[in-house]
Amino acid sequence: MGEFELIRRYFFPLAASGKHPDVLLGPGDDCAIQRVGKGQELVFSMDTLVEGVHFPKHYPPEKLGWRSLAVATSDLAAMGADPVCFTLAITLPRADPDWLRDFSSGLATASRQFGLNLAGGDTTRGPLSLTLQVHGTVPENRAIRRSGAKPGDLICVSGTLGNAGAALQFLDSDLPTPEQAQLLEHYHAPQPRLLLGKALRESASAAVDISDGLVADLGHLLEESGVGGRIDVSQLPLSAALVALRADAIDLALHAGDDYELCTTLPEMALEQLPESIREQLTVIGRVHEGEGLLVNGKDPRGNSRGYDHFEGR
Amino acid sequence: MGEFELIRRYFFPLAASGKHPDVLLGPGDDCAIQRVGKGQELVFSMDTLVEGVHFPKHYPPEKLGWRSLAVATSDLAAMGADPVCFTLAITLPRADPDWLRDFSSGLATASRQFGLNLAGGDTTRGPLSLTLQVHGTVPENRAIRRSGAKPGDLICVSGTLGNAGAALQFLDSDLPTPEQAQLLEHYHAPQPRLLLGKALRESASAAVDISDGLVADLGHLLEESGVGGRIDVSQLPLSAALVALRADAIDLALHAGDDYELCTTLPEMALEQLPESIREQLTVIGRVHEGEGLLVNGKDPRGNSRGYDHFEGR
Repeated sequence: MGEFELIRRYFFPLAASGKHPDVLLGPGDDCAIQRVGKGQELVFSMDTLVEGVHFPKHYPPEKLGWRSLAVATSDLAAMGADPVCFTLAITLPRADPDWLRDFSSGLATASRQFGLNLAGGDTTRGPLSLTLQVHGTVPENRAIRRSGAKPGDLICVSGTLGNAGAALQFLDSDLPTPEQAQLLEHYHAPQPRLLLGKALRESASAAVDISDGLVADLGHLLEESGVGGRIDVSQLPLSAALVALRADAIDLALHAGDDYELCTTLPEMALEQLPESIREQLTVIGRVHEGEGLLVNGKDPRGNSRGYDHFEGR
Repeated sequence: MGEFELIRRYFFPLAASGKHPDVLLGPGDDCAIQRVGKGQELVFSMDTLVEGVHFPKHYPPEKLGWRSLAVATSDLAAMGADPVCFTLAITLPRADPDWLRDFSSGLATASRQFGLNLAGGDTTRGPLSLTLQVHGTVPENRAIRRSGAKPGDLICVSGTLGNAGAALQFLDSDLPTPEQAQLLEHYHAPQPRLLLGKALRESASAAVDISDGLVADLGHLLEESGVGGRIDVSQLPLSAALVALRADAIDLALHAGDDYELCTTLPEMALEQLPESIREQLTVIGRVHEGEGLLVNGKDPRGNSRGYDHFEGR
């Protein structure tokens, strides 16, 4: 099957279904065209997933379709953006119709759920990898940047941490226990916190999504903000499944990546004024202070691993 | 060297130098932010280049830096867009500082010349490949699409064709002849026709950049427009170097890719009304007619190869 037929058959349907009104021209031309409304700014983020690095070899293509878009979309959530569309560059060793059907099916499900239309991309031959760019919009000057944390702000996270990192141990298990299955779900089907991010747009001083591990990502946020912070491990939100399966649950919650929860800072009063439905998605784990660096129970956590570095390994 | 240090050292300077006023937030946060002015639309295109597929193994990194951005930017030219910024996802087998210095140097030169700021991206480990997305703007409804060609329109191309395709034969030559060197320049340093594309914005009925070969790309344009066309090989613009070196110059001009010239259609009167400086960049090679398909000297050119297909080879 030729490149053009391949693209048409599996990817054009994602562009047509649930078409976002701001995507004025989708795949098939030299460029796609997007309208950015008056008083809006475009926010965008690019992520690459390489086989054997960001996902295992022979990873199920339907799961890969979901996961690749979820990972990218999580960056929109961290900015408090409204999702609009995405582009996909897919590099494949061969044009395997079964693989493409399953991959595009997972991608389509995620695309509909997140409200992101496929707007364009590229299909090439080579070692399996995916690069996605997601586009969203925010009202002028309302994007939640990493650099706005202020001394006295609370540090909060969404969901529970460490689950996806724990799941790496039994990704290949044919018969996972119910608890293992719960953790696997976090790895296979992360949920970008789009609604939470949007709800925090007027309240949060800073936010980041946790892709490389809490200590690493919160560390970047504090550094960009020119402040320090401390967190209390007794406050870390842990799932019952993680606690049941792993003695080192806290270490995973601090350092493991792939969870795609949000970490945000905001003044105490702003947290109190959030709607109950939003507030209950957040756990306070610490506080921002003047100075620099992140302390975990009063100590520098850098003695341990510091999150995922693609050129240094974990 | 860690991922963050790597990115900072080699790529952040590209974001800072010649900063485009519409790039409100560059690399370093979860997303980049771009302002799209009132009355403007965002146009964007994504391109992947894989080592061993789109460029040879051990290709000089400085040339790769230029070429990768030029190839992507050519799509902005084909839409008649004003360039704004780009994102870069770079996948590398290892963090080689010499390679990165040379690559980022070539990329920086292209970035300044084309007026495109680095706005974000991703750096990952894996087999060498690059995915770039370029962003531009056009006034509302003024993008030159592929689908607007009308019966009676002239078919024009910019520059000369077939040069980059001919250069593939002696890419590895240590001592190219002066004529070979001229052709090599077309391969190594293609020039996206940004000013020409912009000048055609009010006149052209359709345009496409020639990446896969004239017959293939013009074929897509005609198909998208729902019309047919014919071209006269005696009108094809050929460089003296190509004619001197290759007996099959016309075949290369028809079918070889990698030239990144523009192919555009426009009414005869619109061509006459273009400024002399623009008109002289174009060569009339044929005419659009009702019906479908492309005829070359009255014949269907599909007996020959039909441009580059990444899953079928040339």
